[in-house]
Amino acid sequence: MAKDKKPRRPRAETPRGFRDWFGAEVRERGEMLAAITDVYHAHGFEPLESSAVETVEALGKFLPDVDRPNEGVFAWNDEDEGWLALRYDLTAPLARVYAQHRNDLPNPYRRYAVGPVWRNEKPGPGRFRQFYQCDADTVGSASPAADAEICAMLAEALEAAGIPAGDYVIRLNNRKVLNGVMEAAGVLDPSDPEKFAHERGIVLRAIDKLDRLGDAGVRALLGEGRKDPSGDFTKGAGLSPEQAEIVMGFVAARRDTGAATCMRLRELVGTSAAGVEGVQELETIAELLDAAGLGADRAIIDPSVVRGLGYYTGPVYEAELTFEILDEKGRPRQFGSVAGGGRYDDLVKRFTGQAVPATGVSIGVDRLLAALRAKGRMGGETAGPVVVTAMDKTQMAAYQAMARELRAAGIRAEVFLGGGNMGKQLKYADARNAPVAVIEGEDERARGVVQLKDLALGARLAADIETHEDWKAQPAQMEIPRAQLVQGVQEIIARGGLGTGTGRG
Amino acid sequence: MAKDKKPRRPRAETPRGFRDWFGAEVRERGEMLAAITDVYHAHGFEPLESSAVETVEALGKFLPDVDRPNEGVFAWNDEDEGWLALRYDLTAPLARVYAQHRNDLPNPYRRYAVGPVWRNEKPGPGRFRQFYQCDADTVGSASPAADAEICAMLAEALEAAGIPAGDYVIRLNNRKVLNGVMEAAGVLDPSDPEKFAHERGIVLRAIDKLDRLGDAGVRALLGEGRKDPSGDFTKGAGLSPEQAEIVMGFVAARRDTGAATCMRLRELVGTSAAGVEGVQELETIAELLDAAGLGADRAIIDPSVVRGLGYYTGPVYEAELTFEILDEKGRPRQFGSVAGGGRYDDLVKRFTGQAVPATGVSIGVDRLLAALRAKGRMGGETAGPVVVTAMDKTQMAAYQAMARELRAAGIRAEVFLGGGNMGKQLKYADARNAPVAVIEGEDERARGVVQLKDLALGARLAADIETHEDWKAQPAQMEIPRAQLVQGVQEIIARGGLGTGTGRG
Repeated sequence: MAKDKKPRRPRAETPRGFRDWFGAEVRERGEMLAAITDVYHAHGFEPLESSAVETVEALGKFLPDVDRPNEGVFAWNDEDEGWLALRYDLTAPLARVYAQHRNDLPNPYRRYAVGPVWRNEKPGPGRFRQFYQCDADTVGSASPAADAEICAMLAEALEAAGIPAGDYVIRLNNRKVLNGVMEAAGVLDPSDPEKFAHERGIVLRAIDKLDRLGDAGVRALLGEGRKDPSGDFTKGAGLSPEQAEIVMGFVAARRDTGAATCMRLRELVGTSAAGVEGVQELETIAELLDAAGLGADRAIIDPSVVRGLGYYTGPVYEAELTFEILDEKGRPRQFGSVAGGGRYDDLVKRFTGQAVPATGVSIGVDRLLAALRAKGRMGGETAGPVVVTAMDKTQMAAYQAMARELRAAGIRAEVFLGGGNMGKQLKYADARNAPVAVIEGEDERARGVVQLKDLALGARLAADIETHEDWKAQPAQMEIPRAQLVQGVQEIIARGGLGTGTGRG
Repeated sequence: MAKDKKPRRPRAETPRGFRDWFGAEVRERGEMLAAITDVYHAHGFEPLESSAVETVEALGKFLPDVDRPNEGVFAWNDEDEGWLALRYDLTAPLARVYAQHRNDLPNPYRRYAVGPVWRNEKPGPGRFRQFYQCDADTVGSASPAADAEICAMLAEALEAAGIPAGDYVIRLNNRKVLNGVMEAAGVLDPSDPEKFAHERGIVLRAIDKLDRLGDAGVRALLGEGRKDPSGDFTKGAGLSPEQAEIVMGFVAARRDTGAATCMRLRELVGTSAAGVEGVQELETIAELLDAAGLGADRAIIDPSVVRGLGYYTGPVYEAELTFEILDEKGRPRQFGSVAGGGRYDDLVKRFTGQAVPATGVSIGVDRLLAALRAKGRMGGETAGPVVVTAMDKTQMAAYQAMARELRAAGIRAEVFLGGGNMGKQLKYADARNAPVAVIEGEDERARGVVQLKDLALGARLAADIETHEDWKAQPAQMEIPRAQLVQGVQEIIARGGLGTGTGRG
């Protein structure tokens, strides 16, 4: 018998690439998402929470830079249901939901969705395998007005979340214009759309890396290929220098005004029908955004924006934060993109055989939260609850009554429930970032008073105070009649300036 | 080549047992959970969102009525990380989180958690494989005051969610008392706790089924076993009639007052040290609840409550809704339990080797939502957004401006973005449950007016109206100056009585 053998204890660890979120992290994310989704809701979008688990066949393979089936997703073979997987984004599930429920949904169907998605990718610093997305999409409208609305709504959502005008810009482009340029360059034949599809994929991904690789790097990838500093060689699209020149002309087509950029794009697409249509759409979107008050300071046409995903078919857009932050080495750098999206007219067609026009945007929730923290607009010191210490364990009912009185007055409050003396209890109150500790021992109870300890002031004093006399002169602790508990605590909190309301604010 | 072969289209379906949540379902759940977690937060509890994916070894096997390893969970073998699984509740992850982060967490650590959990069980009507839980737990306190606090907080949370006093009762018991009774009945030997463990498991599950099986059914399971109406035989615990009598005496020990029940329990546990301690804890909890204003109308000691889970070690509690609803066959029945929990002092020990006292409660989110809907406290008619129709597609900017003006005044509003004539647009507005449709064609624009269609009134008229003259006399449509758009819409909404604010309320 193995009875004497100690069973191995399980490791108390998340799997690699997964993490937990604590306290203020959870509340801050919740508040930011509430601000954003309130904007979406005001625009007539309805919430949708789709199943986290999908069949692998319904999810399809739309992850960027992933070739093998099921690569990039967490999947398992269910006895009854076949291969199931965790969703990797909120767009593929939307296409499935729309195809499944389209007869019961309004048309167009406009929804927002918030929730975790899972990617089976190599984890790295700051790179997790479960993270939040926040999406808004319009399914069933082919109108550029739908694209313009998403962009205008995104701007409003960013401002509601705490990114003011001037700190972000919405950058717009159109895949149809890029296709027009590809036509002009001879790497797209409208009569045989599959031809050169592989080359165009390389072109797309090369342009998407312009920020990182620069002009020369992109040119190399358009041509024979590129050797990176480590010596690894990436095969290029094999375009001739003349062809590459046309593509690079597109990438650099941005001019001072939207109108001037569109004029330049018209030259580049030449006689391509798709290209001309794409430029017209961009002009319509730009006009609508302008009418909505989003001038060139907040929304611009930028042909270098292509978005990596293969499924976009028309307008694409992204929101970039324009302020600088310091990177891990202390160097200033642009914060970069926090949201992106575009038009994808073929995702629903996978299920139904009929093309359904759709457009939408996804916000990178963790990146936007990081931006708000970097700007000091979130994540400042937050006060914990008032802690009622429990000196005399026979008086728990009386201590609970104090906490209840404080809560009834809108003050977050709890009774210390652990073991230990006053020192340990005050240490706990400090760890909780409590603004006030309430103390009532036998003596206080007999005299009908309580002691209030101003912990915020106590901490400041401990940091600043020079002499023992200074310390004694400071009123970091005061005695008040038990009947004035609420008033006394309110006064200390007011002078500390830290909110500790019971609400979600 | 298979080029001409049509690829099979993926089915647009959730896997069996999974579902999507739409619109008001999502918002109502969000509002209910916000009301509950605001109560938890006011009590000093902090939010925690743990990883949805855990290692199988960390999760352990704590599902009720499940014997085989990994049964009941969705699990897969990860190349690098070994067996991973989706969490099946929020308690097992809490034990892992506490063991992993205990040096950085306050002690006691009090947290609430809200989120989906996944069970790999046979789906059935109303039985899903992904559902929400909402938990609150105190880890690190052995005090019965911690159990009492959870119960009092649960009562407050139910009331905040919309279940008034009188419609629920918190029922309390203590596993230690049951163990004392087992000792008295000779099926627990404190010097050899493993002996009769199998029999005690059967006793526990039998008592947990009292509601369903009745007195005779439970007695059969305590003895040789029970044949159910289908002829299936369940083996019993093999207790003698005398032993079974002691156990049934415990189940029926409830008296008119908590004090009388405790007196009866003291008789039943005899000299069992665990039993006496259990009764003392119940008395302490009852006193604290009484002091907190939870009298016998809201909290009672009920020895028939045992909770099915194996891991409870002390006080157990559940919240039962006491009103009747009609079942699917129109018969009145008690709504039953919506929340349950208890003390589990050994879950963290699995990881650390040291016992850590813990107690907490889990609310069945979907059941509580169903209860609120059954009582008409949620799920009434909710107005959709005002729909600005788009008669003239060249005027999209003007229509968007109208929607913006309405939103700026706090009215949810959208522009119709689909295709189709006025009939189709008004049908869309009806499908959206819009209170008002705004119409501006070429003629209206020339005259500086807009038409407002009162859709709520229109629907009532269509139901009630008797003659064509009545119809024409009713002001379901009115013309107002364009400049008075907001005011006109506000008036119609006010007379309809349906809120359509942009907020989350």
